[in-house]
Amino acid sequence: MARSRPHSGPTMHDVAAAAGVSQATVSLVLNSASGSRFSDETRQRVKDAVQQLGYRTNAHAKTLREGISGIIGFLGDAVATTPFAGKIIEGAQERAWEDGLLLLTMNTGGDKALESASLDSMLSYKVAGVVYAGMYHRRLDVPEALEAVPSVVLNSQDRKLRLPSVAPDEELGGYTATRHLIEAGHTQVAMINIETLESELPAAVGRFNGYTKAMTEAGIPVSSELVRFGTGNEDDGFTYATELLTSGKPPTAIFCANDRTAWGAYQAAAELHLSIPGDVSIVGFDNQETLAPHLRPGLTTLELPFVEMGRRAVDLILQGAEPDGRVEFMTCPLIERNSVTHPKEKP
Amino acid sequence: MARSRPHSGPTMHDVAAAAGVSQATVSLVLNSASGSRFSDETRQRVKDAVQQLGYRTNAHAKTLREGISGIIGFLGDAVATTPFAGKIIEGAQERAWEDGLLLLTMNTGGDKALESASLDSMLSYKVAGVVYAGMYHRRLDVPEALEAVPSVVLNSQDRKLRLPSVAPDEELGGYTATRHLIEAGHTQVAMINIETLESELPAAVGRFNGYTKAMTEAGIPVSSELVRFGTGNEDDGFTYATELLTSGKPPTAIFCANDRTAWGAYQAAAELHLSIPGDVSIVGFDNQETLAPHLRPGLTTLELPFVEMGRRAVDLILQGAEPDGRVEFMTCPLIERNSVTHPKEKP
Repeated sequence: MARSRPHSGPTMHDVAAAAGVSQATVSLVLNSASGSRFSDETRQRVKDAVQQLGYRTNAHAKTLREGISGIIGFLGDAVATTPFAGKIIEGAQERAWEDGLLLLTMNTGGDKALESASLDSMLSYKVAGVVYAGMYHRRLDVPEALEAVPSVVLNSQDRKLRLPSVAPDEELGGYTATRHLIEAGHTQVAMINIETLESELPAAVGRFNGYTKAMTEAGIPVSSELVRFGTGNEDDGFTYATELLTSGKPPTAIFCANDRTAWGAYQAAAELHLSIPGDVSIVGFDNQETLAPHLRPGLTTLELPFVEMGRRAVDLILQGAEPDGRVEFMTCPLIERNSVTHPKEKP
Repeated sequence: MARSRPHSGPTMHDVAAAAGVSQATVSLVLNSASGSRFSDETRQRVKDAVQQLGYRTNAHAKTLREGISGIIGFLGDAVATTPFAGKIIEGAQERAWEDGLLLLTMNTGGDKALESASLDSMLSYKVAGVVYAGMYHRRLDVPEALEAVPSVVLNSQDRKLRLPSVAPDEELGGYTATRHLIEAGHTQVAMINIETLESELPAAVGRFNGYTKAMTEAGIPVSSELVRFGTGNEDDGFTYATELLTSGKPPTAIFCANDRTAWGAYQAAAELHLSIPGDVSIVGFDNQETLAPHLRPGLTTLELPFVEMGRRAVDLILQGAEPDGRVEFMTCPLIERNSVTHPKEKP
């Protein structure tokens, strides 16, 4: 099936001659993950010579000989094929490439046979480590084979607390969102969550705990009349925001635990002829790039730090990723746009 | 850096014994891309034994010996990290996996050095072929190294017409969108394009040609007063839809050449207190899953056939992908929702 091409191109010797360095230097620069024992200038000269001559290392032979390749595996369920988390791959890849490593991504869509074959393949290619990424933040059953190389669970947590994990700090995010509304002067702050607490979904539980903490800290009692549990889509946002805003004691602000829910709340406000933020302030969560900046007015929301999380997972692998079961929670920054203001004076 | 694990596990002999077949059969089933010379039952028995025993082939040794791996490379610019085209990878991977092949994805973000290193790595791993995917439909300068293996350009076209390409049929899409509005009874059909024609962007040129063709075919003259050239974002959709709808002779229908532009047109209609589709019908293009179904009313639009295109690219590779420069245009299906109705009776 494949057209083969005879390998009679330039040798490592040719590259060394062109770069004016020893063959050992070429080998070390090309084979070391970081190559940091040489100056940037030397590394650049070697890379220029490789480029110019079109030198191609035989990665298979090299890997067999040296036991490790310049590649980090990225094994994801559907993280690469959903519209939300592409930046997590961007971050991981950017960080890997800074050290001259490539990121090899395989997607399983949650198919266990495909996952097993993919991981098998990665391991037999002697990857330097594996990032095991979840599409959304949850506790995962992690394949044991991952323990063969430095591995990190990304955007999720290892249920068995063996591998290190990198995940968003949901509770701090919920706290920050709510605190932002309280600081604007709101005391009637509602929350529409994305799942029940019984779901044990870290995003739902954490964001709710953050809301409760900020309210309690400010001396505002949390009222069940102001809390709703949806399923994270616009329809629920629309329904529950309508319910809240037409109740006897409507909130002056709503913390929607994701941007889609916030979009539904915008649609509810429009139907009720209420203006955002004049009549009701809204804060979302996720900072979905296709949604949050494009709403009118732009949505103030918390950003899931996908780029930073991806970078951090690769950092941990480059440091050896000891299987110590730690979970590193990363801060979700507040992105301020125009959906929050102080509440109207009571008449 | 990597913790090594001694390879003292089960051998191919053990697998053959467990499956009740010869060692040659195991080898052929595991190494052949399609493995189709054996019955499904035999292949299943071998796979079950492999699974049960935890047998891991040494892919490196195998590839060096046999010259080809069970892996197809997928090299993309930013296709995997933008929120729009994840399904193209899903399709490619699904098709590869049906033949027992894995899809190895590398993203370059358009960085030429990273692209070259990624391709180098893929080729030295003896991939069975490479899918070279563009984030959006355009004419690409394709690395010559791709000609070493069966390769296909996906969601774009090889500028030099060497490699086969798989791309959306933009013109048929523009025709279908416009025809749908004409069939609903509209004659005042405007179009807001996503780029100028001078851009030579296939999506802009093709969709406009389709619009022109449908209008002309129906005997409706194309008026420059009804055509606007934006840049594909909501703001342009908002601005141009406002312009069109407040003109002396407002259109009764607008074909927006992407969904984001259509979203802007929705916002314009809302500000002008015009109802969709009662006062103005709208058709979009792209069927963005995070947008089109969630607008109120749901947006009638054309779908970019990402899954099908991804599958087709892998099909072509499995068939050898001769570098004959052909471009296979794939149909964008009309997705009907609620943004189109017949025009109001003139008073």
